[in-house]
Amino acid sequence: MTIQAAFYTGHKTFTLEQKDAPAPGPGEVQLDVAYVGICGTDMHVFHGNMDARVGNHRVIGHEMSGTVAQVGEGVEGFAPGDLVVVRPLAHCGECPACQAGYTHICHKLKFLGLDTDGALQEKWNVPAHTLHKLPQGMSLETAAMIEPLAVAVHDIRRARLQAGETALVIGGGPIGMLIAMVAKHVGANVILSEINPNRLKMAAEMGFTGLNPREGDVAAQVTEITGTKGADVVFEVSGTQPGVDLMTAAAATRGRICMVAIHAQKAQVDLFRFFWRELEMVGARVYEAVDYDQAIQMIADGLDVNRLITDRHPLAAVQQAFEALEGNATAMKTLIKIGETA
Amino acid sequence: MTIQAAFYTGHKTFTLEQKDAPAPGPGEVQLDVAYVGICGTDMHVFHGNMDARVGNHRVIGHEMSGTVAQVGEGVEGFAPGDLVVVRPLAHCGECPACQAGYTHICHKLKFLGLDTDGALQEKWNVPAHTLHKLPQGMSLETAAMIEPLAVAVHDIRRARLQAGETALVIGGGPIGMLIAMVAKHVGANVILSEINPNRLKMAAEMGFTGLNPREGDVAAQVTEITGTKGADVVFEVSGTQPGVDLMTAAAATRGRICMVAIHAQKAQVDLFRFFWRELEMVGARVYEAVDYDQAIQMIADGLDVNRLITDRHPLAAVQQAFEALEGNATAMKTLIKIGETA
Ligand SMILES: [Zn+2]
Ligand SMILES: [Zn+2]
Repeated sequence: MTIQAAFYTGHKTFTLEQKDAPAPGPGEVQLDVAYVGICGTDMHVFHGNMDARVGNHRVIGHEMSGTVAQVGEGVEGFAPGDLVVVRPLAHCGECPACQAGYTHICHKLKFLGLDTDGALQEKWNVPAHTLHKLPQGMSLETAAMIEPLAVAVHDIRRARLQAGETALVIGGGPIGMLIAMVAKHVGANVILSEINPNRLKMAAEMGFTGLNPREGDVAAQVTEITGTKGADVVFEVSGTQPGVDLMTAAAATRGRICMVAIHAQKAQVDLFRFFWRELEMVGARVYEAVDYDQAIQMIADGLDVNRLITDRHPLAAVQQAFEALEGNATAMKTLIKIGETA
Repeated sequence: MTIQAAFYTGHKTFTLEQKDAPAPGPGEVQLDVAYVGICGTDMHVFHGNMDARVGNHRVIGHEMSGTVAQVGEGVEGFAPGDLVVVRPLAHCGECPACQAGYTHICHKLKFLGLDTDGALQEKWNVPAHTLHKLPQGMSLETAAMIEPLAVAVHDIRRARLQAGETALVIGGGPIGMLIAMVAKHVGANVILSEINPNRLKMAAEMGFTGLNPREGDVAAQVTEITGTKGADVVFEVSGTQPGVDLMTAAAATRGRICMVAIHAQKAQVDLFRFFWRELEMVGARVYEAVDYDQAIQMIADGLDVNRLITDRHPLAAVQQAFEALEGNATAMKTLIKIGETA
């Protein structure tokens, strides 16, 4: 059977090709892909920053929703027509991280859609263990937000955020916004630090206190808002040095900092503040199965992640979709619609 | 009643003076001071770095042991002759840290022996709530080590170190050595990174694996020793940039880093490693009551902290004691003996 697939072929280019869709192998499930979200990592691939890892003939895409088309030998619990999302991680099972139970950050982790072909194609074969079943009737468009929502759920869980606490989110891109939404969902008071006025407007609409570091001293403002206490939890999602300065300056005594951003360079960190206020910092990367379960439940409970979907394009327009995201101050999440029926 | 006291009077100088010893006020206890240890903070005072805080006529000293001489009005639970140590912290009870139960890192914390007169005098009046009673018969010389030992106990507790885990201690001064001893006491495998050959020799005698970063790649050695896993817990006690580089490089996936050192300057921290391996870092400062209780119990159980006492001087020789510590490569802990009978 022949399907259409979008291959990243280097030099900021996607090439649409017809390819064979093999039947699912033992333990695999073949999916009809419905929607694929474009994330920051995909943009990194587009910009050529990950050519050494992905090569120049790779179907990328890992934020997705779809329907089971057929199941391979030995697969139980899934049947054609089931609505599903993929948790795109393949672990080794043998490294110290896997042995300690941290399979999601396996030392030899393979990421589906980067290290193997991904979701920007009409049919996608994946290992059955990566699937999470959705409630019948859930919108597959909304469900394409489950992967990034699971990132946010993982971050909240790593930070042990509780109802009634004050959470400061530094950086209001898609992940920052989702963290803020989940923080509000669990009952926290949410402050968002962001320089983009469009994003601050969206934050206000969602009930977050938006603060612009270009217009004031955010740490002083957080201190004042919290009656001199500081933020119980800080999420550093900006990946910037000012964000790193703010995270220690705004945190309460014994405050928890969750390191979400990818800092490619070492950053200057106020370690004295860690000592003085007995701060805590935890790194958070991808997600575990429980984070997917919780993300699915939150959407079933009505968490309105749809408002973050700002752009939609068909698979045929994948090149334009990526180009439109470059330097785009109003875009939040772009979805590529692949299936006809979804 | 007139007693002898050593006043820090600025310019690297201690002056011995006769002073009046007032009776203890309500809620206070008067102690006959037995031994006073000299710590890094005291050396900072000696060097003039803390003149703005301590002034130029201050009795310093906070690592101590002694005997109750008399009790003030309203004091219960203490009687003349009781052996005691002082937990030299006075909190405000009203700030957000105190309200949250973290009185030991109160935002307005006063430190006895810095912000008020300390232990380098024959009799010392302290609030009764700062006292911990010692088992009868405990050596007061050994007991002078309880304050720094409580720091180490607090660090171990903040890092949640468990039996069977591998602990890397970066920096083998008195606090680093005490952390290593407590780590071994709770059943951890201890690796000490240190450049001073005298301290490496002492580490070997105490059963720690000593590694010298000037002679090899300590992170690589820790990785090899732990079968590629890395250290479960890292204590950064060096206060140096190479120590900060090592702490992230040597930590296992989900490893915990305890920030013990005082980094006066911001340091370059590998935040990517925090993200990638989901590392955790906790700051640790002074101690809580439970840390004193555990430290006293460990000494009662026979933890041999005496081996860290390398020098002893009478109060009359306090000036020489401080001078002898400057640039001293073999000294670990100096005690000033004050009482006659202890
Ligand atoms: Zn693994
Ligand atoms: Zn306080």
